[in-house]
Amino acid sequence: MKAIEFLLFLQKIKTLDTTTYKDIFLEYLRKKIRVTEPKNLYEPIEYILELGGKRLRPVLVLMGAEAFGTAYSKALDAALAVEVFHNFTLLHDDIMDEAPLRRNKATVHEKWDENTAILSGDAMLILAYQILSTYEGAVYKKLMQLFNKTALEVCEGQQYDMDFENKEVVKVEEYIHMIQLKTSVLVAAALKMGAIIADVEEVEAQKIYDFGLNLGIAFQLQDDYLDVYGDAETFGKQVGGDIIENKKTYLYIQALKNASEKDKSDLLALYSQSLEDNEDKINRVKEIFQATNADELTKKEIELYTERAFSVLDTIQMENSKSLELRLFGENLMIRKV
Amino acid sequence: MKAIEFLLFLQKIKTLDTTTYKDIFLEYLRKKIRVTEPKNLYEPIEYILELGGKRLRPVLVLMGAEAFGTAYSKALDAALAVEVFHNFTLLHDDIMDEAPLRRNKATVHEKWDENTAILSGDAMLILAYQILSTYEGAVYKKLMQLFNKTALEVCEGQQYDMDFENKEVVKVEEYIHMIQLKTSVLVAAALKMGAIIADVEEVEAQKIYDFGLNLGIAFQLQDDYLDVYGDAETFGKQVGGDIIENKKTYLYIQALKNASEKDKSDLLALYSQSLEDNEDKINRVKEIFQATNADELTKKEIELYTERAFSVLDTIQMENSKSLELRLFGENLMIRKV
Repeated sequence: MKAIEFLLFLQKIKTLDTTTYKDIFLEYLRKKIRVTEPKNLYEPIEYILELGGKRLRPVLVLMGAEAFGTAYSKALDAALAVEVFHNFTLLHDDIMDEAPLRRNKATVHEKWDENTAILSGDAMLILAYQILSTYEGAVYKKLMQLFNKTALEVCEGQQYDMDFENKEVVKVEEYIHMIQLKTSVLVAAALKMGAIIADVEEVEAQKIYDFGLNLGIAFQLQDDYLDVYGDAETFGKQVGGDIIENKKTYLYIQALKNASEKDKSDLLALYSQSLEDNEDKINRVKEIFQATNADELTKKEIELYTERAFSVLDTIQMENSKSLELRLFGENLMIRKV
Repeated sequence: MKAIEFLLFLQKIKTLDTTTYKDIFLEYLRKKIRVTEPKNLYEPIEYILELGGKRLRPVLVLMGAEAFGTAYSKALDAALAVEVFHNFTLLHDDIMDEAPLRRNKATVHEKWDENTAILSGDAMLILAYQILSTYEGAVYKKLMQLFNKTALEVCEGQQYDMDFENKEVVKVEEYIHMIQLKTSVLVAAALKMGAIIADVEEVEAQKIYDFGLNLGIAFQLQDDYLDVYGDAETFGKQVGGDIIENKKTYLYIQALKNASEKDKSDLLALYSQSLEDNEDKINRVKEIFQATNADELTKKEIELYTERAFSVLDTIQMENSKSLELRLFGENLMIRKV
């Protein structure tokens, strides 16, 4: 294949497959998720599922199945279950964070109330399980075991994240462990669920899980990075939001670890404030991030986990075109602005 | 068998089996539920599971299996899953009701905080599913389908209950439908899960479900009755608590339906108040309950559903001693003071 052909091929995969999977998934979601009685329970569920988003996890379920030669259509229910579960976590996390907005729209506890948000979230978690129960036999059992383990880990990750708020010093490895649980295991499980539906051997299924696990960590670290250094035009959220909320991100942890005495005491002082006007705070924190090389360390860590993901990917037995598709998907995630 | 022998036999069953099942269950619970890291997630789970209670639902799972000739030991995991699920609903309901106490101890959101209560509840729901995943094959699939359906219905029941708070007139049949979803389906499912583990035919399993469904409605109506007419010494909760909180119970709904114009406007006025001293309110409401025959109507309705339960029970193919055991269990529930 000539270079130009190869580039066109990449372009084709990039524009076609991922967006196609997303569109197919959204069509399926709209067909399956219908509001029934009692409306106050089911309307918030439809609402949050319609708020948009990258639909990263369900697309990965479909790609996981296709990667091992099984039609994505067989994986649609698993994709839906994963997306419903993910949105359940967003719904309950938004209550815990007292977040007024999600994707620039009112969160469920704001639009309805907190009790509605708790109960609709509970129902979503059950719905995710119910959607999975369309699978049969050994595939069903394997999906359930993975899903149970993953769901519990996500709760553990959320708990560690909350614990960190009251902890003065969070170690780098504690932070990585937290984001692995809170974010990466679901990305990894999404891919592995596709592999389970494709009925591949456990050793191959585990490799695609490991690919997802590393990619998920890189993805979350990049979220931390974009929150500070993203382009206000394209980022969609308030740039500097994590600094305003005193969130102990990877950047903060690295900065605190490597700061001079002066910078360290400044950073601790800044992170104990809640201000009206945050411009000066953001600028000073960014100065400290730069002085401590936290920005570059974060970029390096993103690269490290991305490379680990791709190294694992190269060892999985699948068609080259499928492997390339997953690699491109990962690369697109890493060059994203949103 | 002579009358005296029969009575001794009844006594034996009553004192032995039910309390034995409860003890066996509690021992199993304590063996299986262990606090691990993160502690802030798992400690509240152990705490609420140790608060006590009748352990009605897990005992019914064990009895459901034994009723069809299968050792209770095979049903212990299902019993544990049902109890963990039930306590998940209590944990989240207590947040929604802003309840400070459960079984005279601080509720989880009081002892820890609301975020902890939300997240630990979520983890309990997942744990219930994880505990069920010890079953295999067709039994597992059937358990899951029943459990998914039941869990979603319980959420729907809770939503209707919350909706009723903002609804002026609740019809008797709407109320029965609500308590069927919120309380009875889990009692029914507990018994049927035992039957599924015993691998009986669907038609028999469905009958024991129907027995539980009717018993569950009678049980909840009796809760409403005891809340007003229970003995303060033995009831364990504040007598009149539902009246103080303006809860639209079966008694209230019947009273409002059958009241004179004067009583009706009094009742509506009383149920729009939040008072410091509730003695006069409770006395006046009890007067109206009596004038409208709401107390007797409630007792009749309890009898009706209890009789329905026992009629179904008589049609189930099982050993007489097992049938008797279930009947006694039901009768004990109906003569309880707590």
